[in-house]
Amino acid sequence: MSASRKGDRRERELVNKLDENGYAVMRAPASGAATDRDLPDALAGNGDDFYAIEAKSSSGDPIYIGGEEVESLIYFAQNFGAKPRIAVRFDREDWYFFHPADLYVTDGGNYRVKKEKALSEGIDFTEFVGQSERVRIDAFDGSS
Amino acid sequence: MSASRKGDRRERELVNKLDENGYAVMRAPASGAATDRDLPDALAGNGDDFYAIEAKSSSGDPIYIGGEEVESLIYFAQNFGAKPRIAVRFDREDWYFFHPADLYVTDGGNYRVKKEKALSEGIDFTEFVGQSERVRIDAFDGSS
Repeated sequence: MSASRKGDRRERELVNKLDENGYAVMRAPASGAATDRDLPDALAGNGDDFYAIEAKSSSGDPIYIGGEEVESLIYFAQNFGAKPRIAVRFDREDWYFFHPADLYVTDGGNYRVKKEKALSEGIDFTEFVGQSERVRIDAFDGSS
Repeated sequence: MSASRKGDRRERELVNKLDENGYAVMRAPASGAATDRDLPDALAGNGDDFYAIEAKSSSGDPIYIGGEEVESLIYFAQNFGAKPRIAVRFDREDWYFFHPADLYVTDGGNYRVKKEKALSEGIDFTEFVGQSERVRIDAFDGSS
């Protein structure tokens, strides 16, 4: 399987996992976005939290994300009213989430995530979907 | 030009107009949506208002929208945290927006919009983009 097809499959898996965890998710079209703007890979919302997500999976380590791609993500997220997040997935690992500001920026202006950093400092999937207000409200109900 | 290509072009025009009016917009992919769920045609947000939009253009009158399509729109909008809107465009007219609940439902369970009703009762584009909180805040600033 080519790297891009594998990346596409993994991105679908991420979208499905978010869907199963109460998010309504729209993936960006591969083409025909209508405007000239770069779109994030996915938009996810659950009524409380809105995320614009750029997803990168790789068999290599580290994962690099282009500086312009991240700028476009932040720009779109800000305009839309969503939180920008970079989701990275290394082979045989789960997805980890970062706010762009928490990533290392290279001298060339690109963003870099090492696998070690993803596993130690990234927000894992369970934490990511557990960050919603909805869950906190449920927690309150449980304590009464 | 085929009816579907014309519809596609008009949908792009709508997305571009929303973009020009301060909305960040994501169009649904034609295929490869990743989940089995029916997606709305577009998601638009401006930091204050979030809309899930089903867009229908037609040279015929009235315009019909399938009942299941509208149910999917409402379901997605509710889960995401967006307002569901049906956008209709008749030949040589502008886009008009409706909340699904304001449309006529046929005996067969489909939604129907007559051109006459769109022009007299629909929210026109200027009203639609002017409904945001952002504009109301600007209005307050202007009165001081």
